[in-house]
Amino acid sequence: MTDTVVSSARKEIVIGFERPFVLIGERINPTGRKVLAREMKTGNFKRVESDAVAQVQAGARMLDINAGIPLADEPAILAKSIQLVQSITDVPLCIDSSIVAALESGLSVYQGKALVNSVTGEEERLETVLPLVAKHEAAVVAISNDETGISEDPNVRFKVAKKIVERAADYGIPVADVVIDPLVMPIGAMGSAGRQVFSLVRWIREELKCNTTCGASNISFGLPNRNGINGAFLSMATGAGMTSAITNPLHPEVVQSIRAADVLMGHDKDCAGWIRAYREPPPAHLAEAATGGGRRGRRRRRAVG
Amino acid sequence: MTDTVVSSARKEIVIGFERPFVLIGERINPTGRKVLAREMKTGNFKRVESDAVAQVQAGARMLDINAGIPLADEPAILAKSIQLVQSITDVPLCIDSSIVAALESGLSVYQGKALVNSVTGEEERLETVLPLVAKHEAAVVAISNDETGISEDPNVRFKVAKKIVERAADYGIPVADVVIDPLVMPIGAMGSAGRQVFSLVRWIREELKCNTTCGASNISFGLPNRNGINGAFLSMATGAGMTSAITNPLHPEVVQSIRAADVLMGHDKDCAGWIRAYREPPPAHLAEAATGGGRRGRRRRRAVG
Repeated sequence: MTDTVVSSARKEIVIGFERPFVLIGERINPTGRKVLAREMKTGNFKRVESDAVAQVQAGARMLDINAGIPLADEPAILAKSIQLVQSITDVPLCIDSSIVAALESGLSVYQGKALVNSVTGEEERLETVLPLVAKHEAAVVAISNDETGISEDPNVRFKVAKKIVERAADYGIPVADVVIDPLVMPIGAMGSAGRQVFSLVRWIREELKCNTTCGASNISFGLPNRNGINGAFLSMATGAGMTSAITNPLHPEVVQSIRAADVLMGHDKDCAGWIRAYREPPPAHLAEAATGGGRRGRRRRRAVG
Repeated sequence: MTDTVVSSARKEIVIGFERPFVLIGERINPTGRKVLAREMKTGNFKRVESDAVAQVQAGARMLDINAGIPLADEPAILAKSIQLVQSITDVPLCIDSSIVAALESGLSVYQGKALVNSVTGEEERLETVLPLVAKHEAAVVAISNDETGISEDPNVRFKVAKKIVERAADYGIPVADVVIDPLVMPIGAMGSAGRQVFSLVRWIREELKCNTTCGASNISFGLPNRNGINGAFLSMATGAGMTSAITNPLHPEVVQSIRAADVLMGHDKDCAGWIRAYREPPPAHLAEAATGGGRRGRRRRRAVG
């Protein structure tokens, strides 16, 4: 039973073995989003704001913030984005950069306990990111690759994860504050990618007692009907013990799969969340009577097939 | 690695640990279908035929045939239904009745190796159904309840399953021909129902080396958006090692969840089945060129979100 507690100034979220799955919204990331990259670079954060609000409304319980734009002042843009998003939402954030100065800049303005994304098993990264995480008493995503790259061998990936957990402990970072990303490969390129993740998650949970996360959408890279694969992957990963993922909450199928997995794991007490999300609207004449008339279809709900 | 081989006169299907999941179509069952019950009772089998064809087209790899109609000649109706369905489809059938005389009648006309649905751990049932299964060299679904009813304790359910496997062996029925149904309770009534099934499936597979099946739709009884729960349940059960289920293939979400789980378990080689099912149609001008023109929209495919 491991609980990773993260927070904003006003709200705490717990990623935990016996907790509802934590969906971390992935959209605020200029990688592959040219318009967003251009806007962020020129100081226009309107889309960052609207993406933040839309993702939280759609079911994200945390948001990942990435400002990786070539030839831009990433530390300044990341800090600015974090401040803006924290001013309009109260979900805890995942501060995402491959540049240590940007992580530092982001952490310096962040209100609450952030999740730092990420440290790897590379020596240089361990030695720069972990002290920063320790100094700010943050939590950290540990990605199980190192100087040799991403191994296709799950044993190697487990060993890298274990090394990071041990090194984090040397800096005073407890196991509960290390969230491991076992790395998700595209299933279209590697048929064992799904089962590798499921068994690694179980193993990490049982032996290292760590929470887990991943960039879930990668599993379906190159395939048609990606949300169908992504949704089943998230349900199955939850069944294997995964406790959070960085993914896109704007796809209703993805959110539904996570909600259903929470129900099936017994993490949605009395199915209350599911019923709230998917109950059918009352018949029109009752709805009108209840609201004083006229506003039919005000609350659109998904039809049950 | 256990393979349960069933067949019709012309086709073999294997339910197995390293095989694609076998969806057994549940629709030909008059329980709760008044119109179908009335028709079957009066010798009108048109709906039985159309339901058979529709389920196979939708992705069922076997069909369950049940003729449990109060005050009707169940043995005769079941035999007639089986003969008709075998004359128009080539998928193997699951002969489903709580009346031993009906199972006997069904088996006597069945062409191929059937799956008998079902035996329980009740003494009287063991002693009448197992000899019949052995005589016809069929396979059998073993439901893990006994005279004391359905236990809420997974340990008891496992023991009942084990007893059935042992008794089957006494009659010369091999482990591979016993497909265990661990019993699925409604998650709305029992929050642990999902995890119970997942752990029982793993346990049955590891210790008894048996294939598994279940009446999957029961999990969502009483909840809104049942297909959302059913789909996630089927993906997660597959992740836990379940190898077949009796369910409704006419819900595209359910079939999609099973196909996605096959991909993620590495049981859909090169994702070929998934790509065939969900690839986007070629642009209209290319489709027209290829077909000699004009028939736009002939093959409707699901849009990718």
